[in-house]
Amino acid sequence: MERKALLLVCDGLADRPVRELGGRTPLEAASTPNLDALAQAGITGIADPVAPGVRAGSDTSHLAILGYDPRRVYTGRGPFEAAGMGLRVEPGDVAWRCNFASVDSNLVVLDRRAGRIADTLPLVKALQEIELPEVEVELGSLGYRCALVFRGEGLSHRVSDTDPHATGVKVKPAEPLDGSREAMHTARLLNTFSEKAHRVLEAHELNRRRQEAGNPPANYLLARGAGIVPELESFSQRYGMMGACIATTAIIKGIARLAGMEVVEAEREYIARARQALQVLERCEFLLMNIKEADEAAHDHSPERKVEVIESIDAMVGELMQFAEDNYIVVLSDHTTPCSVGDHCGDTVPVLIAGPEVRSDAVAAFSERACASGGLGRIRGMDIMPILLDLLNRSEKYGA
Amino acid sequence: MERKALLLVCDGLADRPVRELGGRTPLEAASTPNLDALAQAGITGIADPVAPGVRAGSDTSHLAILGYDPRRVYTGRGPFEAAGMGLRVEPGDVAWRCNFASVDSNLVVLDRRAGRIADTLPLVKALQEIELPEVEVELGSLGYRCALVFRGEGLSHRVSDTDPHATGVKVKPAEPLDGSREAMHTARLLNTFSEKAHRVLEAHELNRRRQEAGNPPANYLLARGAGIVPELESFSQRYGMMGACIATTAIIKGIARLAGMEVVEAEREYIARARQALQVLERCEFLLMNIKEADEAAHDHSPERKVEVIESIDAMVGELMQFAEDNYIVVLSDHTTPCSVGDHCGDTVPVLIAGPEVRSDAVAAFSERACASGGLGRIRGMDIMPILLDLLNRSEKYGA
Repeated sequence: MERKALLLVCDGLADRPVRELGGRTPLEAASTPNLDALAQAGITGIADPVAPGVRAGSDTSHLAILGYDPRRVYTGRGPFEAAGMGLRVEPGDVAWRCNFASVDSNLVVLDRRAGRIADTLPLVKALQEIELPEVEVELGSLGYRCALVFRGEGLSHRVSDTDPHATGVKVKPAEPLDGSREAMHTARLLNTFSEKAHRVLEAHELNRRRQEAGNPPANYLLARGAGIVPELESFSQRYGMMGACIATTAIIKGIARLAGMEVVEAEREYIARARQALQVLERCEFLLMNIKEADEAAHDHSPERKVEVIESIDAMVGELMQFAEDNYIVVLSDHTTPCSVGDHCGDTVPVLIAGPEVRSDAVAAFSERACASGGLGRIRGMDIMPILLDLLNRSEKYGA
Repeated sequence: MERKALLLVCDGLADRPVRELGGRTPLEAASTPNLDALAQAGITGIADPVAPGVRAGSDTSHLAILGYDPRRVYTGRGPFEAAGMGLRVEPGDVAWRCNFASVDSNLVVLDRRAGRIADTLPLVKALQEIELPEVEVELGSLGYRCALVFRGEGLSHRVSDTDPHATGVKVKPAEPLDGSREAMHTARLLNTFSEKAHRVLEAHELNRRRQEAGNPPANYLLARGAGIVPELESFSQRYGMMGACIATTAIIKGIARLAGMEVVEAEREYIARARQALQVLERCEFLLMNIKEADEAAHDHSPERKVEVIESIDAMVGELMQFAEDNYIVVLSDHTTPCSVGDHCGDTVPVLIAGPEVRSDAVAAFSERACASGGLGRIRGMDIMPILLDLLNRSEKYGA
């Protein structure tokens, strides 16, 4: 029987010692009998998602964990957001993550999410009518979140954000980030598009109705994270197995899509998600499952909520224990998000690998500190796939 | 409040098990309550200063620890010695570390340090009159130690030492180390300079008086460690914080100077040095403090003296404990200098990082072996600054 693998990436799970939790991390404070049992049965370690001290984003970390070197393929979040929202993107396209925002008549940002507007499809439809010289434009949205793609000759991702990343200040013009003709050309195009988009949105019926109802209009598109769409070797070609991804966030789905993996929208409920994972694993050999909620709790500076999320994840893992008897489960965090900081930090993350014939170690708990004395030692995100392929007996011998 | 960092590099601190110390290393044998308390409160590990097994010099190791890849910026010790002695050096200059030495009429070396001559400034002044075609020459000295700088077009550091590194043998002519025109040109220039310098020194009044008093004359300049002055990005630009360095040795001061750091001559007495460190840290965010004495004891094959030095360092650390409550202290050795070998070896060195929110581990002693089971695992010298910047909350996120 061919063994399969589930790579469970708990987003932002890792943390630092928290005073309110008695100097424990949320993962140490949570009751996690299933994760601990997997740690006991398996081999553990710590990993630098990208490199020691580097504060990885979820995107760069997931790329590394899937074996795609972010230093080679990553130039910005835009392409992954666009692919994750279902836009057609091609290698060489330049893409941005955008927000529908509210601005006043002086272009001062009043609300970076336009009151978290839910339905922006009519707006996207209107914006798609905008024409730019020599450039094809694609747009897609999911509520206030939007992605913008430019396709054409002579484009560059080396342009600054129009999003000022704050309210009460004016939107910024895009500026070239280097002296290249391509960067200047792209910045000019983005500025032209932004002005035209503002006019279209200002005049849009939907915004008129929003204002009548006392809601902030979605009258500006703030762009950030320009990136060039990379050419990723497909996951199946690279590893010789069918890969799928269960996720909730566009950026993770986008990475999986660009790697040619099947993308499945995650169930909301944790136990249902475990069943969903087992179903997907019926039809493919490899599943990347991203669980977003611990990261969100940490971004909100809430260790208590993070502990609750971790306990829910542990219950979900309980449903997957049987799978690990004949297959491999890898559990890790894609980066550390300390509740004290509320953003990503560069500390290591705990890793465990459970499954047949792994060299189990003395570690019997899944946590940042317990795993530091595990049998894997200190590895990197880019090491995960080679180690897993080897266990799956899908590696080639290097030499004789 | 902005957190600050003290990077305490104990030169040559790490050692191997010593029979006379009952199989303990000097660091294990010494009583170090303060370092142990920091280890207990902090996170520990072991580090390869450059790479596993590589016998790092103090220069290559300090470069790596400060985040400057020695493989890219280091070609020889000369530039760092020259900068450390206060000479003006510019990127592209070729520099040597020299010794004032005594030679006989056949140019056989009698004393590589000319009786450890103390005042060589009159000699340097005379040597500065030497003219070489198309090359500007700079000289500086500190007793028998001297630095020589050539500035001009078409120079190379790929030339052999004129120092035979032994007495009873003739001085060596500089030879090109590759077939390049630049190396041949530079070797010729150095040989011309060495001959002219010999004539100037032989005739110098100061040497005549030395010989009358029965002292060996300083009548030859032995050159070694040719290197090209690198262009180092300034520390403050690279890390966004003001950095200073407290040291006694020219080579460490030279590295700090080339990185644009403030350089402070260390107090002799250990407790005074701790106070000096705290004073310097009032005006800057980062302090590199090099403590040289443990390395000297090891070079002299004296484990007993090394133990004493370590206990003095520990007393000094005692004065710094309060600083670590709200700031970060990193303690490590720049390389292993076993008393049995009397020179640098390639073993790992212990590291500890203490300060707010570090993931403390179970290690409660600061030693080569205790730290090997610490939470940092095995890292490299080049990892220190990224890890520290992350803790200081001075890192940028890589990705989204």
